[in-house]
Order: sequence, then C-alpha cells, then structure tokens
Amino acid sequence: MIEYRNLRIAVLGGGSVGSQVADQLLRHGDELGSRIGAGLELVGVAVRDVDAPRDTEIPRELLTADAESLILGSDIVVELMGGIEPARTLILQALNSGADVVTANKALLATHGPELFEAAEQVGAQLYYEAAVGGAIPIIRPLRDSLAGDRVERILGIVNGTTNFILDRMDRHGESMEEALATATELGYAEADPTADIEGFDAAQKAALLASLAFHTRIPLDEVHREGITQVTLDDVRAARKAGYVVKLLAICERIVDAAASVDGVSARVYPALVPLDHPLAAVHGANNAIFVEAEAAGPLMFYGAGAGGIQTASAVLGDVVSAARRHVVGGPGVAESTNADLTVLPISAVTTRYQITLQVADEPGVLARIATLFSEHGVSLETIEQSIVASDAEQAGSAPAATLVIGTHEAREADLAATVAALTTSTVVHSVTGVLRVEGL
Amino acid sequence: MIEYRNLRIAVLGGGSVGSQVADQLLRHGDELGSRIGAGLELVGVAVRDVDAPRDTEIPRELLTADAESLILGSDIVVELMGGIEPARTLILQALNSGADVVTANKALLATHGPELFEAAEQVGAQLYYEAAVGGAIPIIRPLRDSLAGDRVERILGIVNGTTNFILDRMDRHGESMEEALATATELGYAEADPTADIEGFDAAQKAALLASLAFHTRIPLDEVHREGITQVTLDDVRAARKAGYVVKLLAICERIVDAAASVDGVSARVYPALVPLDHPLAAVHGANNAIFVEAEAAGPLMFYGAGAGGIQTASAVLGDVVSAARRHVVGGPGVAESTNADLTVLPISAVTTRYQITLQVADEPGVLARIATLFSEHGVSLETIEQSIVASDAEQAGSAPAATLVIGTHEAREADLAATVAALTTSTVVHSVTGVLRVEGL
Repeated sequence: MIEYRNLRIAVLGGGSVGSQVADQLLRHGDELGSRIGAGLELVGVAVRDVDAPRDTEIPRELLTADAESLILGSDIVVELMGGIEPARTLILQALNSGADVVTANKALLATHGPELFEAAEQVGAQLYYEAAVGGAIPIIRPLRDSLAGDRVERILGIVNGTTNFILDRMDRHGESMEEALATATELGYAEADPTADIEGFDAAQKAALLASLAFHTRIPLDEVHREGITQVTLDDVRAARKAGYVVKLLAICERIVDAAASVDGVSARVYPALVPLDHPLAAVHGANNAIFVEAEAAGPLMFYGAGAGGIQTASAVLGDVVSAARRHVVGGPGVAESTNADLTVLPISAVTTRYQITLQVADEPGVLARIATLFSEHGVSLETIEQSIVASDAEQAGSAPAATLVIGTHEAREADLAATVAALTTSTVVHSVTGVLRVEGL
Repeated sequence: MIEYRNLRIAVLGGGSVGSQVADQLLRHGDELGSRIGAGLELVGVAVRDVDAPRDTEIPRELLTADAESLILGSDIVVELMGGIEPARTLILQALNSGADVVTANKALLATHGPELFEAAEQVGAQLYYEAAVGGAIPIIRPLRDSLAGDRVERILGIVNGTTNFILDRMDRHGESMEEALATATELGYAEADPTADIEGFDAAQKAALLASLAFHTRIPLDEVHREGITQVTLDDVRAARKAGYVVKLLAICERIVDAAASVDGVSARVYPALVPLDHPLAAVHGANNAIFVEAEAAGPLMFYGAGAGGIQTASAVLGDVVSAARRHVVGGPGVAESTNADLTVLPISAVTTRYQITLQVADEPGVLARIATLFSEHGVSLETIEQSIVASDAEQAGSAPAATLVIGTHEAREADLAATVAALTTSTVVHSVTGVLRVEGL
C-alpha cells in the first residue's frame, strides 16, 4: 500500500556517537527500512578532517568536510557535533530546507531551543531530541506523548552519570570527593575538565528541557537554579546514610501552586539532595540515570537506564531517525512543541522543601534552646535534632568544647531557610554551618 | 497555521476507566485541545444500562446504550468495555468507519490483534493500546518508537500487580500464599475470582503483546508458555531469600540464537522465577509493575510505575487519545504494526536458563554423589548444593532420616532439566521434588 521511497540521511559529526549511528545505519539500514516502508540511505558523514585516523567502518567516500552541501537534498539530518556553533546554523539550514532534524545537543536546545522549534514549525519539519536527556532512556517521548493527557506534577531526575558515579563511590566505597573524582576520571566516567558535570551545568540543561516539555512552558536556562556537588563532603554522605538517606544530584522540575502564598508557577533546579533510602532513585548506582516522574493520574513512574555512552546515545538517535522516517513515509506536518501554558518560572526562593542542616556549636547549656528559637523566629519548624559531642582540634588545643548538631526541618520556604542560615552564621553559639542539604522524594 | 477543528470522541464502556477518561475529557478537554490545535469533544459514553446508578460526573445526556450509533461520525473511539465481544465487533466497525481506536483491552489484542491491526492498516486508521500493558507506564511507545532503531534482546516484566502484591507479602511479611491472597482480596488488589491473575493468564496476554512488538513477529497467545504462582510456597520464598533471591512472576520475551543447537527464534513465557536481590526488578514492591528491557545498543532499561488502577489506566488512555488527535490534525495514514521479521516462536523446551531445585532426600552416605551423577547424566551441571538436615514428621514417627537439598544449576536447556526432574522423582534416594524454580536476571 505504501509507496517505497529512499530517505537520504546525513550525519553531522564523526565522534563516538556519530560513528556509531553511521555504522548502525550501514549495518541495519535495510532491516529498519523494510519495517518502515522506505529505504534508509546514509548519504554522508560530515567531519572536521576527513583524513584524521578514525576507528570506524564508515567508507572513506562517505566522509566529507562540507556539512552544508551534505545537508542539501537530505531528508533527515542527524546533528551530533555538539556545541552551539556551527551546530545551530547547520540545524537551521537543515530545517529551512525541509529536512527533519535529530539531535542529542542538550546545550544547544537549552539555550536556543525556542528558535529551533520555531524554525521547524514554520516549515512543518520536526526536531527530535530523545538522546539529549538520559542517553538511551526513553523520556522525551513518554513526556510528550504518553503523558500528554495527564498533568505532570514533579520530576526528580538523576540525569548526570558522572556525578552519580562520584556520589555513589563516596556512599558505597567511602571515597572522598577528590578520590571519587579521580576514580571517575580513571574509569572514563569523567572528562579531563569535569566542570560541566560536577558544577551541575549539564544537569541544568537537561532540567530546562524536561521542565519545558513537562509544563508546556519555555524555561530559560538562566532561570534554572543550579548547585553542583563540589561542596558535598564524605561527612555529609555518611551523616545522610546514618539518617536514612543517600545524596544524589537531582534535576528537579516542579509545578508549585500555593494560593495562600500567592505562588503559582514552575520551578526548575539542580542541587545535591538527600533522597530516602527506600525511594526508587536511591537504588540508582554507578553512572546510571533515572528519571522519576509524578503525574496527577499516572502516579509515580520511573525510567531507568545507562547514562550517555556512545552506543546508548546512538540507540536513542536511531529511534528518532526511525520516527522521522515514518513521518516522511506517512506525510503531514510535524507536531509543534507546545509552550502555550506559559506558566511563571519561579525563583528558588519560592520553593518549599525540607532541609538537613549540620552545625558546629558550642557545647554548653542553653545552646539547643537558642538555636531552636532562632529557627522558630524565621518560621522554620524542626522535625529532628541529633547532637554528637566531638573531640575537635580546637578542644584538643584547649578551646571551648564543641558539638555537632544535625537538624532536620519540616517543610519550609527556601527564603525562610536562607534567612535562618544567615542568622545561624552570625549567632554567637554557632561555630560554623558545615552543611545545608535539601531533602527530596518524601 | 493549523486549521482548528473539532474532534469527536466516543467512549465505549462506563466502568472505572471509562468514567475516568470521560471525566478527564470533560474537565481538561479544552486545555488538551489548545495544545493539540483541535477541540476534543466527548460525544458520548456507551454503557450497558443508562439508568444504572453510577459514581461519575458524566451528564446523563451523554450516556447511551447504542454503541453502534455512537461510533458513527466519531473521529476517535475509545474502547474500555473489556472482553472479546462486543468489543471486537465495535472496534472493527470503528476502524472501518475511519476512526482511530484507543483500547486497553489486552485480552482482545492478544487473541485478535492481527485481525484488528490489519483492519486499521487497510483503511489507514491507527490502533493505540499503551494502556494494555503496565497501566500508566509508557512501554508500548518506547518499544515501538524509541527502540525502533535498536534490537531488543530480552524483556523481563513484572506486569501483573496482583501476583506481585501476593509474592511481596510472602517475602516481606511472611504470609502464606493463602494469607497473602486473602490480604490482596481484602485490599482490593485481587478480584473475587483471581484465576486470571494468579494462574498467569493476564501476564501471558501481556507477554504476547510485548513480544510481538519487540520482535516484529506475531506471537499467538497459545504459544506463550504459562505457569502461575499457585505452586509457590512460603518455604520457596524463604529459601530464595536465603540464597539471595526474591520470587517474582515474570513475563519473559527473549530472542534466542544458538547456532550450535540450531535454535533461532523468540520465546514468550510466564512463570514465577528467582530474581537476584540486587536486580532492579527485585525492588519492585506491592502491586507495582516494572518492565526491564535489554537492547543491543541501549543496554538495560527499566520502566516502573503503578499497575492498572482506573485512574492510572486512564492516564495512558488519554495519552493515546492525544496522539490520535494530533494525527488527525496533521493528517496522513497510520503507522502499521510491523510483524515482518516473522521469527520462529520457540517452545519452552528450547529455552536455556538456570534452575534452583529443592529435594527431600534420604540422609544417608552416597546420596549426594548419586544425585550429582544423575544431573550430570542429563547434561545439567551443578553450581551450588546446600544441604540441611530436617527433623521431618516422618523422622519423628520413626522413619528414615531425611535431608533437604537445595541445588542451583548452571545454564541448562529446559528439556534437559525436565528429564532430570523426571529422573529425580523416580530415584530411590529422593523422597520428593518439592520445588523447581528458574533463575532469571543474572
């Protein structure tokens, strides 16, 4: 019934993912094509230097340094170069020429997504990006399609493999942050410059994408609150486990409605948080990713799998290529990204959550009462206080005795907590505030 | 850009899911429609008796007993009656009238799927069934679309909430099978007649659907090997935990290629199996469902969420309604189910896995050697043997002393294992074979 045609596929980028995608198209293109009802023809792979040595089976004649010419006449363009330029310009050229585009470029989407989606909508083309979040884990399609008739309330995502690997090493192997990072680098889970991962930039880009999709609202990257894991110490991780938690770097997307406080909007944020040990996210070890979604009707859902390796990302990219090919076979314009809900993007100060605060305090009568009063004055109510006397260096040197307090709060407004912490740091009975971690997933 | 039109939606069935879907369409139809670019109009709900009392906000004038008339002129028909007839006839009528159909009817799809998909393809309509497996968990779309460019190797699914609840009660609360079933019934997790659940019929239907989709091959329901949980005892569950496993009823879909044994095909089967405690499926408690998918490039993935409750299933149904509506807005024929791989469906005897066998044996010298020899003669190699002397009733009554042997095997062919078990039951040193459970997920 369906007319058989040949779909021309261009791959931009000859790195790990690009090579995998090209290899798979060469090896399995016929099988995929027979299922779709169209031929899938790899017309070329654009690389920076066609003569560079490479570990791939892509025939030499498919390599080209001329990405622009390759795009012309392609039905599907797969962008796997990464970075903002020339990826942005090439994707716009591809869309404007009527090609569907598949990309894994989260940095580009998080910063220039609206421009790209608009260009696609203008010409009725489609921009696919399943591989941009969670490697091979299907999360974009479930959010966009499967949950389209539901209302997402919250997403808690472990979306960065490097930081999960590091925190997991600290938790399960007792390594310090520095040791765990060294292990991650040695095993290839961290890049030479790990800043994008450990400072939460990568997770923030993914949070922006997930929140935009879940809440049908454009979430600019610079409105995603971001804290990395560099401040997390082995002591934090140990204290967390003792209290029944594990520390995870979470990308959190949340619909917040609090009529009493005149708060109505969405929050996208990234920070290390305490997750209860019996929460499904607590069991996500190593460099794996998982996205926990709470929707009004569906209830809690979790999507789990390997983070972004070359071959896993290639799986997601190829799924998108097949979707694009099916769309070419059946015809019709693409589905526009829907951002018409246009909700307010809330600052971190509007967020409500629980906290665990670690303090070094003077070990003298009345301290607990003074600290409890200080919390209460700022509208933060306490749930647990655990005190342990420490034989600190100061004490051994003859200074006043000190104690460690670990305080768990009830739900509190971020702004109130910030004011509390500020007051704690200037209190005469507090030596130092050594840890402030939020608790999520309760 | 997109012309705004009204899409007429008919719901067949006024039970729990049907009422939820109708309620949601009435409450959120405008919001959904504005995202899609089309109005979503609920034109009616077909029920058996319009005058029956019902707990729903559906206006009386939308109720009708005349499903056939309701279907005529509808763009999208949502079938939530369950059972084979009249659901089958009504779905065929809807498809033949050009409507897209959304259904959660796994029993119908597992038995008459090919007929329905063919009818849809003939007229270019589409049949959606995300809600048929795993309640709200998106699994159909990920398998059909996200993994379309990958190769699924194996699926291990906890797809029946009732049996998972029962086995979890036995494991975590020490209840017997009977007690756990009573608890499930009391809490509404088991139906008055639990046969379809505890005998594995429900899971087998889902296994047939998942395997067909994953392997692009029609898997007839009667070629799905099926064993329920009624033979699982509390002793089995306790012995499993002691050995580092938990018992789960699994729907298993597997691509099996063993050139040496001339085996090349797919297996779909349902049975209670031992799952290692550190496997992600082992942490799926209560009535939750989870589908663990291993694909060539993507590696292991898991999709987790609530099993089929009314509101969860409604979420999946509405996601399909939105997909159908988007397709109506953009036009073009539907995507045909692809079954052109046409692989051989293998019998259970061709399956290879590990086993744990519990035996009551005579406690006398040479027994272990005789039993080990018996396994070896049938080509089954042993990995672990654990013996415990039991003060059995027989012994107390003055009979010969007995011991319990728990034997773990290496990978073995199902046919060889069956022959081994047959030989064990006739061996003079074996009093009885009290448990044979397969080990999966290693």
